[in-house]
Amino acid sequence: MTDYKKWTLAKHPSGVPSEDCFALESFTPDAPQEGQVLIKTHYFSLDPGMRGRLSGDSYAAGLKIGDTIESAGIGEIIASGSERFAVGDMVMGGLGWTEAVLHPDRGLQKLDPALFDDKVAMTATIGVLGVPGLTAWFGLQDLGRPQSGETLLVSSAAGPVGATCGQIGKTLGLNVVGMAGGTDKCAYLQGLGFDAVIDYKAEGNLAKAIAAACPDGVDIYFDNVGGEMLDAAILNMKPKGRIVVSGQVSEYNREKPVGMRQTTRFITHRLRMEGLVVYDYAKQFPEAQAAMAAQIRDGKLAYKEDISEGIKDAPSEYAALFAGANFGRRLIKTI
Amino acid sequence: MTDYKKWTLAKHPSGVPSEDCFALESFTPDAPQEGQVLIKTHYFSLDPGMRGRLSGDSYAAGLKIGDTIESAGIGEIIASGSERFAVGDMVMGGLGWTEAVLHPDRGLQKLDPALFDDKVAMTATIGVLGVPGLTAWFGLQDLGRPQSGETLLVSSAAGPVGATCGQIGKTLGLNVVGMAGGTDKCAYLQGLGFDAVIDYKAEGNLAKAIAAACPDGVDIYFDNVGGEMLDAAILNMKPKGRIVVSGQVSEYNREKPVGMRQTTRFITHRLRMEGLVVYDYAKQFPEAQAAMAAQIRDGKLAYKEDISEGIKDAPSEYAALFAGANFGRRLIKTI
Repeated sequence: MTDYKKWTLAKHPSGVPSEDCFALESFTPDAPQEGQVLIKTHYFSLDPGMRGRLSGDSYAAGLKIGDTIESAGIGEIIASGSERFAVGDMVMGGLGWTEAVLHPDRGLQKLDPALFDDKVAMTATIGVLGVPGLTAWFGLQDLGRPQSGETLLVSSAAGPVGATCGQIGKTLGLNVVGMAGGTDKCAYLQGLGFDAVIDYKAEGNLAKAIAAACPDGVDIYFDNVGGEMLDAAILNMKPKGRIVVSGQVSEYNREKPVGMRQTTRFITHRLRMEGLVVYDYAKQFPEAQAAMAAQIRDGKLAYKEDISEGIKDAPSEYAALFAGANFGRRLIKTI
Repeated sequence: MTDYKKWTLAKHPSGVPSEDCFALESFTPDAPQEGQVLIKTHYFSLDPGMRGRLSGDSYAAGLKIGDTIESAGIGEIIASGSERFAVGDMVMGGLGWTEAVLHPDRGLQKLDPALFDDKVAMTATIGVLGVPGLTAWFGLQDLGRPQSGETLLVSSAAGPVGATCGQIGKTLGLNVVGMAGGTDKCAYLQGLGFDAVIDYKAEGNLAKAIAAACPDGVDIYFDNVGGEMLDAAILNMKPKGRIVVSGQVSEYNREKPVGMRQTTRFITHRLRMEGLVVYDYAKQFPEAQAAMAAQIRDGKLAYKEDISEGIKDAPSEYAALFAGANFGRRLIKTI
């Protein structure tokens, strides 16, 4: 069989994962046994939220040295030892940073090509219809408990979670304010229909900037960032405000976490803060995906993908995510 | 009329309120007009949670210079301009650090002396049946959402809120672990039926001490302290754990808040943290007070009062609360 390449963990990173944390290995996959399939990867994703698993501090046990780096991916069955999948089937699942993978026939979703077109690309299944979009959908609606007319503040708003969250907020009648870094991202958010945008790189005092953009205060803060940005948001929360902890990208690479300081506001303003693991909602995924796909076709939900070609650049593109380059869903195309 | 004394705000404190933040004034109250009553105070309380109002960072606007220091109190009507109250009635309300007060006939609760005896003292209405006890009752049951068999961790457990919370936890079938400073307080908690006690002053690594006392993890952390103790608790929370923010006594006197660092645990462990203002439950107070009074008579709910005589010592006793002296409800007896 052909030779393929994959990225494995060479050492546990401290701080932003440098390229020497990853090893590019060539391998020749075995033929699938019964209950297995061989998948040729077409696309895989680069996920900031996976960072914890590289150093082992996450909800599941972390990766060991030599393990293939994890990610969502889309691929084609090129050999099958399972009645569930035929050669040529397209599937979505946790394929990893690899050009091919020998996979059990479980944990894979068969993709019907008829459901995709120029409006909803197949890659959406690992983006706006995948973990980032579902995190926005369930985080905002289940933990945020939005009421029409309320103000939603979103951090990392130009990223795939934030941009989806803000747009869903608009469909729910919320006043949506996004925080992003740089004029390009801010212009993008205005184009998506955000009511106000804060360029945090241009602001000296973020708490004041939020107060100016949200003069009546914030009902829901959808937090992808953490740290000082979380503090600035809390200082602007209304009584009974809800904080959805979706991501903490400013924390993932720190040796010592910064956390937040405004805990007394939880008493004075009766705040609630709650964390989200999207897999808790797995049974409701199909319904949410159908609703979001309909919104995409109706022009109410736009999404953006940043696709790099070739497996070789995955580590450098991954590091770039933590340098504020989180603009659209970051994918690697491997074919 | 007689001369009385009251404590007013002389300057806004920074840090632990020093005695020069308070001024002891003599005054002669006016006779009550229609709709007013003159109350002679018997007892008033010293509340750590009121600290924020001295510097103005609380849910209500803070005190101004010259305002009487606020607190709950019990007193006797000595002159009445209201049909609601007769001379000799005992009432409970926000009387302040004062020997007497001219008060509107609203916001006062008439106390029926027949309801009190050697088991339930009238002072309980500003203690275990007042704000501290109600905070424990509603915080644990509404925000903590306890399930029988779960583990409850309580900080400042020998204080009036914490001790009540732990005992209510026992009536609900919880495994109750208290944190307090010193052997006296720890022995007191063991006498109350706490399953385990952590003397935080004797522990080098609090997170490890919690792990040893709660080997299966913590389902509910009832937090009266904040800061590093909150971090140590979070590191031991189970998935779907609940943090009730009842008080943040370690934060009230800090110029710069310490806050907490473990925000990423909110994602990895799906934690929820929620703050409490007990007045939100005002309509349910009578029912809760009746239930707690019954528990006191049944010997299931003990409470402790530390009563000092004379208004003069209120500022020094108040400062002592922040030095870890929060053992029992701290009251001043003014008659």
